[in-house]
Amino acid sequence: MTDLTEANERLAQINKSRLDSHGIFAVNIMGTPGSGKTSLLELTLDDLKDRYKIAVIEGDLATSLDAERLKKHGSEVLQINTQGMCHLDANLINKALDRFDLSKLEIIFIENIGNLVCPAFFDLGVHRNVVIVSAPEGDDKPIKYPVMFRETDLFIINKTDLLPYLEVDVGRMKRDAKVINPKIGILELSCKTGDGVQDWLGWVEESMAQAEPRSN
Amino acid sequence: MTDLTEANERLAQINKSRLDSHGIFAVNIMGTPGSGKTSLLELTLDDLKDRYKIAVIEGDLATSLDAERLKKHGSEVLQINTQGMCHLDANLINKALDRFDLSKLEIIFIENIGNLVCPAFFDLGVHRNVVIVSAPEGDDKPIKYPVMFRETDLFIINKTDLLPYLEVDVGRMKRDAKVINPKIGILELSCKTGDGVQDWLGWVEESMAQAEPRSN
Repeated sequence: MTDLTEANERLAQINKSRLDSHGIFAVNIMGTPGSGKTSLLELTLDDLKDRYKIAVIEGDLATSLDAERLKKHGSEVLQINTQGMCHLDANLINKALDRFDLSKLEIIFIENIGNLVCPAFFDLGVHRNVVIVSAPEGDDKPIKYPVMFRETDLFIINKTDLLPYLEVDVGRMKRDAKVINPKIGILELSCKTGDGVQDWLGWVEESMAQAEPRSN
Repeated sequence: MTDLTEANERLAQINKSRLDSHGIFAVNIMGTPGSGKTSLLELTLDDLKDRYKIAVIEGDLATSLDAERLKKHGSEVLQINTQGMCHLDANLINKALDRFDLSKLEIIFIENIGNLVCPAFFDLGVHRNVVIVSAPEGDDKPIKYPVMFRETDLFIINKTDLLPYLEVDVGRMKRDAKVINPKIGILELSCKTGDGVQDWLGWVEESMAQAEPRSN
């Protein structure tokens, strides 16, 4: 297991160097099935595609349903089917990067497998990790899945439009997340109504500026 | 990996024999974080605890929050913390069974780790596997997580009270699940309103009768 982790970490560093040498900013989006990862990416591509050259690496156990959705939004989309494997790893990302012309890209979004557990253990070599939890999943998610929140730069609470119909304490979610990871950023949004999505887009551009990858 | 799978399968058979020799009916409940596994078990214990001797094996990555919730409902609850591992396996269940007086039990419910992927690969040696998906997770879950639906006897669609506020095609979920696994049972319910919960309780008692474990 240590060997596996070491190999992953080594490949993650290689991925990071490759991305940086081409000035590409990469974001890994994680969350449980149905939390809204693909919906958020659809909105993101619509907004950013005219300003940046973007590609998406779309991870799924099976099917290319999400990739088909994303291809309608004007960016390059590469499907990875893990054939049942529960997470993406640095090796899969390394092979995916081979299939792009990296000199023509500025942002790569990675949609990880729908899973709040395993993806947190596998560094992909990206600049930012994001976790999405949708409000109906309940306010105990950060404290019950602490590894994910410890490894993440931004915690997005999605489907806030459903809050009036739920007994969910958003304040508790935020407090617990901050206890686990005091540096974590937190945004609330609804992919359905669009509320808060501008804050997310702002976070992407700000993080991109901070990441300062070397330009090619 | 084959060795691991074989060891798990062997231990699963041992678990099954142990359960059967004591006339205990066991159900493994799987689903994504926040799908409603604990809520369904709370309602189940409230209803069945006066008629059957029940224990719950509660799997979590960390915390005993769910076990604390369940202990208020009058049944024996054993917490397993997997320390980050993404599923329960037959060995963990085997060790958990050591800690019960099996001669005093009739039903064991197992709440698996919140994960729609990994638990499907590990047979625990129970009589029935159940997967819960909550309506807000979206109608593409069966087709995107086929392994889980292939290994499952009953598919519960929870949080139906939220359907008026969602764009979710319940018919599609059911059709896709039946294509993947023509024998799968399907129930719709809401743990919040109680709608449909009687159907679930009926399924438990009916399945118990069908399983016909040898009495001790």
